[in-house]
Amino acid sequence: MSTATAADQRVYNFSAGPAVLPVPVLEQARDEMLCLPGVGASILEISHRSAAFTAIIEAAEANIRKLLGVPDDYAVLFLQGGGRLQFWMTAANLIGELGAFKGKSADYLLTGSWGKQAMAEAKKVAPVRVAYDSSGSNYDRLPAPFCAGEPAMDLDPDAAYVHYTCNETIQGVQFPSEPDTGGVPLVCDASSDFMHKKLDVTKYGLIYACAQKNAGPAGVTIVIVNKALVADASPNLPIYCNYNTHIAEKSLNNTAPTFSIYIVKLVTEWLLREFGDLDAVYKQNQMKAKLLYDVMDAAPDFYIGHARRECRSLMNVAFRLPSDELTDAFLSGAKKRGLSDLKGHRSVGGARASIYNAMPVAGVECLRDYMLEFKNQQG
Amino acid sequence: MSTATAADQRVYNFSAGPAVLPVPVLEQARDEMLCLPGVGASILEISHRSAAFTAIIEAAEANIRKLLGVPDDYAVLFLQGGGRLQFWMTAANLIGELGAFKGKSADYLLTGSWGKQAMAEAKKVAPVRVAYDSSGSNYDRLPAPFCAGEPAMDLDPDAAYVHYTCNETIQGVQFPSEPDTGGVPLVCDASSDFMHKKLDVTKYGLIYACAQKNAGPAGVTIVIVNKALVADASPNLPIYCNYNTHIAEKSLNNTAPTFSIYIVKLVTEWLLREFGDLDAVYKQNQMKAKLLYDVMDAAPDFYIGHARRECRSLMNVAFRLPSDELTDAFLSGAKKRGLSDLKGHRSVGGARASIYNAMPVAGVECLRDYMLEFKNQQG
Repeated sequence: MSTATAADQRVYNFSAGPAVLPVPVLEQARDEMLCLPGVGASILEISHRSAAFTAIIEAAEANIRKLLGVPDDYAVLFLQGGGRLQFWMTAANLIGELGAFKGKSADYLLTGSWGKQAMAEAKKVAPVRVAYDSSGSNYDRLPAPFCAGEPAMDLDPDAAYVHYTCNETIQGVQFPSEPDTGGVPLVCDASSDFMHKKLDVTKYGLIYACAQKNAGPAGVTIVIVNKALVADASPNLPIYCNYNTHIAEKSLNNTAPTFSIYIVKLVTEWLLREFGDLDAVYKQNQMKAKLLYDVMDAAPDFYIGHARRECRSLMNVAFRLPSDELTDAFLSGAKKRGLSDLKGHRSVGGARASIYNAMPVAGVECLRDYMLEFKNQQG
Repeated sequence: MSTATAADQRVYNFSAGPAVLPVPVLEQARDEMLCLPGVGASILEISHRSAAFTAIIEAAEANIRKLLGVPDDYAVLFLQGGGRLQFWMTAANLIGELGAFKGKSADYLLTGSWGKQAMAEAKKVAPVRVAYDSSGSNYDRLPAPFCAGEPAMDLDPDAAYVHYTCNETIQGVQFPSEPDTGGVPLVCDASSDFMHKKLDVTKYGLIYACAQKNAGPAGVTIVIVNKALVADASPNLPIYCNYNTHIAEKSLNNTAPTFSIYIVKLVTEWLLREFGDLDAVYKQNQMKAKLLYDVMDAAPDFYIGHARRECRSLMNVAFRLPSDELTDAFLSGAKKRGLSDLKGHRSVGGARASIYNAMPVAGVECLRDYMLEFKNQQG
């Protein structure tokens, strides 16, 4: 199979995750699949303790540290089990019977489906509080001051942490900046907008992100954690679910998901090479999202956005059309043009365009043009 | 980079894991890296709920069921977290506070480093018993009747299960057949010899195997579990660590490690295509191991095997030489010939040749020839 053929077959893939990756990353993975240069074996075949893999995981960590400006008192970890396991691990390490802050509660902001699930897992280990909940409007908004007229967060100043989901993939609701917790550490599920812009990491106690949306393939979850925050968690936690295990052994207590980490290294190299820094990435993400939101804003009764304007996501653009018939026609017409995976999640319906870092501007322009044409056809 | 060049650079890789994979598997992964045929996107980019991935995970499961003869009342799961998380999960689901057999104990056979670590995790959730322990001789043997003169297992007939490690990767100690537990369910860590021969799955309550030794790449752990055994585990277990979650949702409660599962599919296809069944695989594994053990048996004072003959492994051939200087010379000479990763684990020393299913006969022959030559050179 020639490269040209394969590349020609590619569609613009708006999948919410696993999601589009940069073509140069895929090409390098392809070219090195039988043999990593100088190693004599595939990345799939080498020990996680080999010099070759050590160089890869160290480069992946260094790239993330550089892109996000991660301070030295934070560890960068590469774990397995996805956000799903983090939902439980964060609570178990912090407020559970074996946690560093045993006896304390935590506050949860429910601004979408994932935050709700995170809290359900935390409840298994300790009592937790709901500090904000927009489920009544199917998670289309954020608390004040982000959304005018909304109640503010009801925060417990003694909470061990405040958990929030900075971008809700399903509802397309994104915090434009961190909520102000008055000094209580933030624990953040950043799965679907990780590395879409620069962060002030010192505002966070712990950030976790499964890679398969904006940082790499499925199979690895990146955790950035303030080492002091989790230091007092009990060694009686499951060894795999204790952050201190992975901090002490640099994510190599057991066999790390080597290939997924290799792809994260390639993706972060690509970000550094193509953009230089996350400010440039953010600028492009704002520009791409604006292409679609401008179409929606010009026809708000035809492309009906799910999230309120103050908090709509740069990563996941969720909207519906006036009828199920029009939605179906929109989606099948898109597919014919090579615009794939635009169906909205069943809990919201309609359409959703996930436009992560790796989605080319040309792909978003193509979708924008199609949206304009489809609207005009219904004229 | 041309294929021929990449293939020419490949060494014979005796790594204990992640380990050698079949070249046709790597070639297919390479050829499909930019585009799965008919899909328009890479395996790294498609949703775990897409039709294309559903076909892949179903094929991987069907191949494993076919190769091992897995009965319908057993689930085949694809999880993350490696053997390390299984050490805790098995105990938590069965004998922990939230386990199906809460209040019961379990018996552990300690025949190597991994069994010891499995028990350490189980102890965190409930009291467990040591039913056999060969640590006194650095895990070089098995209980009677496998090794003559050894004590038999000291089994508790009321145990919820008996845990054992059918092949200890580090010490190269392998059970030639299942221990007789008088009806108590076996829970088996089969990480390093999974699918090296046919099993009678009905003898087991649960089998787990991280894939990166004999079944695929790092990042996925295959679990074969009798559904009835774990049915009464509490829903208050962490959702990711509850077997019932994954049984009910066919390993897709959260984003599965899609690429690793895809490679397991390719490896199992290769086994079926190249060998037809696991009896043929086993025959070749016996033949490959014999090539090396015959050299050792002819020079037992030069190539000093770690495991006793009755229980030496078909997968990991562990031996030392008469001195550290000879070991170093042996290993550096091997490397010059393109025989890599032969260094023994630090806890055993010496050399170790891991000769999993995917290690070609030619690779073992090459090592055999080198062992003979090296011995002769020392006159």
